[in-house]
Amino acid sequence: MAVPGHRLDRMFNPEVVAVLGDKGPGYMWLHNNLPFKDKGGRLYSVQLDDKEIPGIEALGVQNFKSMADIPEPIDYALVAVPRQVSPYVLKDLIANKANGAGFFTSGFAETGEELGVKLQAQLTEMAREARFNLVGPNCMGLYLPKAGVRFSADAPVAGDGRVGFLSQSGTHGIMFSLVSAANGIHLSRCASFGNAIVLDVSDYLEYLMLDDETEVIGMYVEGVKDGRRFFDTLREACKRKPVIVWKGGQTEAGARATMSHTGSLAAPQAVWDGMMRQCGAITTNNLDETIDTLKMLLNARRPRGNGMALLAQTGGQSVSITDAFAKAGLRVPRFSDATYTELGEFFNIVGGSYQNPLDMAGTIQGSMDTLDRILRIIDADPNIDAMAMELSAMFAARQWKGKPETLDRTIETLAAHKERSQKPFLVILHPAHEAEYVASIQPKFHAAGIPLYQSFERAAAAFARVLAYEHR
Amino acid sequence: MAVPGHRLDRMFNPEVVAVLGDKGPGYMWLHNNLPFKDKGGRLYSVQLDDKEIPGIEALGVQNFKSMADIPEPIDYALVAVPRQVSPYVLKDLIANKANGAGFFTSGFAETGEELGVKLQAQLTEMAREARFNLVGPNCMGLYLPKAGVRFSADAPVAGDGRVGFLSQSGTHGIMFSLVSAANGIHLSRCASFGNAIVLDVSDYLEYLMLDDETEVIGMYVEGVKDGRRFFDTLREACKRKPVIVWKGGQTEAGARATMSHTGSLAAPQAVWDGMMRQCGAITTNNLDETIDTLKMLLNARRPRGNGMALLAQTGGQSVSITDAFAKAGLRVPRFSDATYTELGEFFNIVGGSYQNPLDMAGTIQGSMDTLDRILRIIDADPNIDAMAMELSAMFAARQWKGKPETLDRTIETLAAHKERSQKPFLVILHPAHEAEYVASIQPKFHAAGIPLYQSFERAAAAFARVLAYEHR
Repeated sequence: MAVPGHRLDRMFNPEVVAVLGDKGPGYMWLHNNLPFKDKGGRLYSVQLDDKEIPGIEALGVQNFKSMADIPEPIDYALVAVPRQVSPYVLKDLIANKANGAGFFTSGFAETGEELGVKLQAQLTEMAREARFNLVGPNCMGLYLPKAGVRFSADAPVAGDGRVGFLSQSGTHGIMFSLVSAANGIHLSRCASFGNAIVLDVSDYLEYLMLDDETEVIGMYVEGVKDGRRFFDTLREACKRKPVIVWKGGQTEAGARATMSHTGSLAAPQAVWDGMMRQCGAITTNNLDETIDTLKMLLNARRPRGNGMALLAQTGGQSVSITDAFAKAGLRVPRFSDATYTELGEFFNIVGGSYQNPLDMAGTIQGSMDTLDRILRIIDADPNIDAMAMELSAMFAARQWKGKPETLDRTIETLAAHKERSQKPFLVILHPAHEAEYVASIQPKFHAAGIPLYQSFERAAAAFARVLAYEHR
Repeated sequence: MAVPGHRLDRMFNPEVVAVLGDKGPGYMWLHNNLPFKDKGGRLYSVQLDDKEIPGIEALGVQNFKSMADIPEPIDYALVAVPRQVSPYVLKDLIANKANGAGFFTSGFAETGEELGVKLQAQLTEMAREARFNLVGPNCMGLYLPKAGVRFSADAPVAGDGRVGFLSQSGTHGIMFSLVSAANGIHLSRCASFGNAIVLDVSDYLEYLMLDDETEVIGMYVEGVKDGRRFFDTLREACKRKPVIVWKGGQTEAGARATMSHTGSLAAPQAVWDGMMRQCGAITTNNLDETIDTLKMLLNARRPRGNGMALLAQTGGQSVSITDAFAKAGLRVPRFSDATYTELGEFFNIVGGSYQNPLDMAGTIQGSMDTLDRILRIIDADPNIDAMAMELSAMFAARQWKGKPETLDRTIETLAAHKERSQKPFLVILHPAHEAEYVASIQPKFHAAGIPLYQSFERAAAAFARVLAYEHR
């Protein structure tokens, strides 16, 4: 077990999972969780409706008409019943001595309706009294890629997750999982926790902080119930591992939207920002920034200083990459004399330039030896703390498409540099007019562990965030 | 002719084009310009080297060993000779009474080398004295999509161009052309003008300002020679049509890079910004922002106010779209009572919400009638000046891929709304985990004239820029 003895440990490492109230024709929740069964987990269904049972059994899942018939305690249940039924299901879960349950069921306080508010109060009271680990309601529940417990049939089953993610929004939880995977990043554990009536973000955060399968924590949060506890937990978590906090409802209009989404009352943004700074959290504003920052944290050396070497394929891009990194507060120092001397020995293409930024004039597309030589020279420069390098879709379209082996050799050369160097190394490949092709080759970079960015600005922002974290 | 009598009119509307000094094996410049010949233009080559002539003639292009042998005045020449030869070529061009020439040749003042500086001074003096329209040097010259004159074999030939683009960088000129085309936008005329030793940005800008084939002007500029003239021309141009100015070298480090790129001395950024504001130009910081702004200018109604209706497919995204637009300074007002009443008649899905932002709870994926009804109701709301709507790659992956006709019907419904409505309408489709698929379907949106954005932030920024322009 990942955090033995912790209150949430059983549900985060389940051996027994039950889906309560799933329905055809799709049987979404059972389908999502079939990998759990395939991996040897005991997956049960509870469904009273005779019409639904053949469909459930056709999936190879044992169905019970009553939770009381399940022969063992449930570690994690997914509840997909009508809201009026939810208190009865919770009662049965408590009787089963289940460890926890994600309530997909919605229609509670977030609607503002009297019935919803009343039902939510009832669930809250019951769960608190029984010290039951209620996830949600109005959420997608847990996603445990290694165990095969999933909140989406598109989310990967993977045993190499390094990132824990917490999300008050179901969409953002799922999207984060899917976009992470598309970027070569898998999750250790993920919780979508919606209205957070019993377990709040602090409970999950505490678990991820202690979980040694989680190297980095990310979260999307709209509001917290107990600000003091969140502050204390976050501060402690940030001492142990990087925590990225993406806050929803940063604006007055956005905060109104959180109210109808998860019933969250937003804190004043200035107070929130101050809390983040004091804790040493890394703050982001959207999914892209969150993923970009993660890539840097997981796939690059940690930066020690802000002196960037910037490498572009053309003169125009050498100006643009410089503006982007300088605007993000990073320095673009002169290279050392030794670097100039060494580059000058072979870097005399008219049109190129070997100052910092380095305008490679597209020549590296041809020769991996030249690329490798440049990377080694700059890596050794004492003025330089980190490197960011452009690859160009304009050249790629002409060369890599025709000769895919030139792409493979480029990636090998970059990956070898990344492994060899003690300095952070970021690569930028703007999709430009080749969005479909660039998207098709991105997995090759991810597989090689190269942090790949879509724009200079996004790379610079990710770098600046991680640098600020290192210097917190 | 587009601007009869203007000094640059012949080269911007050429009937006779010559390529000077092109070489095998690729014969890049002749290849780039074969479409000009195919469209009935007279394309000539000048090359003295006997080894190169068979390759040129194999392309069906008539070669001359001396420019003096060309039987008629050249409207536009592309010069690709070694830098030492360039003064001799210029002399011949003047003797030919050519209207203008783009000097691809580089190695001048931008290198800082004595020979380069001297040669540049010589070209400058010769061209000024003869009032010769020298484009560059150290540039990619003109791109005239309708005429088939091109600076890249990837750049499209197209007669429906609406955007004029000027670029001090060859890369940015080509990239802009390619990325525009990938976004369904074609150019009227484009000049890459590099070191700008004779013709400066103001000359080209004056032409595009007067050119009735150019509806919107964009430019990438690193520095101007005559600030007063640029200010006067830009101010006049902004009165006639929108002008987007993307400045390279906004930072100290970036300005150092422009010096070795095009030999440009940057103006202090604060002075530059003040000049842009006074002129009423739209400023951007990179290629993406420039394209994003263009899409809005070309494909949406002009905004009258900043009251946004925001439509998202899920609750989490309804918060995110709201934060993005509110941060860009836009309002997200309450809908009118009539709108609430009308939406309330059918919009009672538990989990969705019909406040502003509107959480459509994914339902529109199924019913075009529902989507159309929502669009019509909100369009009629007097509190609303403009609409921005999310489409979700998460749903798209599941539905559009399986049933492509649902995508087509969605686009038809959105395009019909766009035509019907007098208010700006923006659509956001984040590539998410489906970057390759989303890239493959984007052309369908462009073909329908729907301004499509990759993120809420990018859509909001484009909208805010155009709104500020309208209220300048």
